[in-house]
Amino acid sequence: MNYEEAGVDIRRKAKVLQAATAAIKATYTPEVLRGIGAFGGMMEASRLKDLAQPVLVVSTDGVGTKTLLAAQTGRWGGLGYDIVNHCVNDLLVQGAKPLFFLDYIASARLEPEVLGMVLTSLAQACQTVGIPLLGGETAEMPGIYREGGLDLVGTIVGVVDKAHLVDGAKVQPGDVLLGLPASGLHTNGYSLARKVFEGWDLEEPRPELEGYSLANVLLEPHRCYLEPVSRLLEAHIPIKAMAHITGGGVYENLPRALPEGLGAELQSGSWPVPPIFRLIQDRGNIAPNEMYRVFNMGLGYILVLDETEAQKVVSLLPEAQRVGYIMDQPEIRVSGLS
Amino acid sequence: MNYEEAGVDIRRKAKVLQAATAAIKATYTPEVLRGIGAFGGMMEASRLKDLAQPVLVVSTDGVGTKTLLAAQTGRWGGLGYDIVNHCVNDLLVQGAKPLFFLDYIASARLEPEVLGMVLTSLAQACQTVGIPLLGGETAEMPGIYREGGLDLVGTIVGVVDKAHLVDGAKVQPGDVLLGLPASGLHTNGYSLARKVFEGWDLEEPRPELEGYSLANVLLEPHRCYLEPVSRLLEAHIPIKAMAHITGGGVYENLPRALPEGLGAELQSGSWPVPPIFRLIQDRGNIAPNEMYRVFNMGLGYILVLDETEAQKVVSLLPEAQRVGYIMDQPEIRVSGLS
Repeated sequence: MNYEEAGVDIRRKAKVLQAATAAIKATYTPEVLRGIGAFGGMMEASRLKDLAQPVLVVSTDGVGTKTLLAAQTGRWGGLGYDIVNHCVNDLLVQGAKPLFFLDYIASARLEPEVLGMVLTSLAQACQTVGIPLLGGETAEMPGIYREGGLDLVGTIVGVVDKAHLVDGAKVQPGDVLLGLPASGLHTNGYSLARKVFEGWDLEEPRPELEGYSLANVLLEPHRCYLEPVSRLLEAHIPIKAMAHITGGGVYENLPRALPEGLGAELQSGSWPVPPIFRLIQDRGNIAPNEMYRVFNMGLGYILVLDETEAQKVVSLLPEAQRVGYIMDQPEIRVSGLS
Repeated sequence: MNYEEAGVDIRRKAKVLQAATAAIKATYTPEVLRGIGAFGGMMEASRLKDLAQPVLVVSTDGVGTKTLLAAQTGRWGGLGYDIVNHCVNDLLVQGAKPLFFLDYIASARLEPEVLGMVLTSLAQACQTVGIPLLGGETAEMPGIYREGGLDLVGTIVGVVDKAHLVDGAKVQPGDVLLGLPASGLHTNGYSLARKVFEGWDLEEPRPELEGYSLANVLLEPHRCYLEPVSRLLEAHIPIKAMAHITGGGVYENLPRALPEGLGAELQSGSWPVPPIFRLIQDRGNIAPNEMYRVFNMGLGYILVLDETEAQKVVSLLPEAQRVGYIMDQPEIRVSGLS
């Protein structure tokens, strides 16, 4: 019906979505107030009262054109993890833990089966990190979206006690950059990747990808760093700054975590770059610097600590690798690029 | 650049958006922590600690295809008010006051001028209701959006003390429905309205619209009910339930506010229906019931109170009109439709 285009929440209507609705309800913690609040989700915030100076940390993001690959391959089950984990990581860099998540899903027309798969993966991703999927909206707007185009947007709210905010203030030249591996492209660089692989068979196993297919590798969900980073926070390791490497790569994301006037040098070769990035660079004939400007290049998350603490972290998190150090010039340099 | 499609935040880049950035900064209350938190907006939540049982109330919504009319007429300055006010009203029905707002703006390509107008109107709308525009994301995705199609989505977080939640629990048969006038279509029914007026001159003054043009009337921003409803809440008027009449009209929105088993009868003619709805109904040859299923029909917000309290409200809010009453059958009826 035409008027359904105008932002009417399909979830209130479609009977076929009962499985997804059950998955969403399964995310409700005891703090979630149910039965009431159909106009808005509700959650008791008593937890915040226990903190000396609660600070709410919030972020909104989208999965970008990764949805087009999901549509092409019919693999919708990872997108929920993509957006939930992306948002969780964005809070985590400030030391905040997530409280709840909301989604927005829009398209020209939403196949109930597709909507069900996306909602279920959103709910499962929320349940994995222990937060309720507290609300959302779904819209069909053929006047605005291309046929087959779908946008998935998430909003997350988290909290941190002001005394535990990670804000980069103590970062100094010589501090160490520790990198945590990415699971793949995460949710950035897909427009370029899709151009490079235009016309390729996405399901064919490829030796350059250790026998995996492009569909396997490109649709690998965005990794969540909540568990490893929480381990460090709970061990009271004084982390000076953290960066989530998303759109714009290290060049754009590291500066967001550092104080004015400081920069960083990363030594390429000090961490393994997953084969997908080499394949994109070779087949797309893309300059190394451009690759680092578009993709995470295998570094999904970066921690900044002083030398002594960095050594502790490596023993606590063997996957953490020394990838560079802080410089007293306001620039991001990647050395050893060929 | 192609990779800009992939959810990169244009606000971090575009120099032309300084005016919008200033407008956004002007929304920052003293609770907003600035200078830090580039990955996520931050706000001190000390306010919540003063409440006995703080409950967070959250909502995400979009403006739907109203953006297509804005594009057609170049009038972008109202859309920010549309989405902010829509979200504020969604919290208000539960007695919650807004804390902060986040936006998401996506299109095939975003003209900086258009983006600037939308961001500025979002900021001004937030400032009008006294909340910070704490975060947002902007994306250009030609693979997902139609040329000229723009989607505007908002997420709001508010708070209410549990003892003051308005949840409909005390609603009884015979309770009175008071309606507050809408400023127009608000943000619903635009796909149908656009179909009806396809090919019409949107700027021509029309006698059926009291001399206003379709552009004037159709792009009138969604009204915010925070001020009048707050007056009642502060006067401790025991409001039993409230409904924000959005997509689905009274038929879909009133039941969301009422307990199981109860319904309502509205007497058409007991409030003035703005001329735009008559014009749509006549020119679209649409059945009266269908009109009430798509549009707010001039009732943007409905309060449910017992008889005595209803009389108090009418004296406090002269614009509030008695439009119906609660029935002991689970159905919404509009009587006197011709």
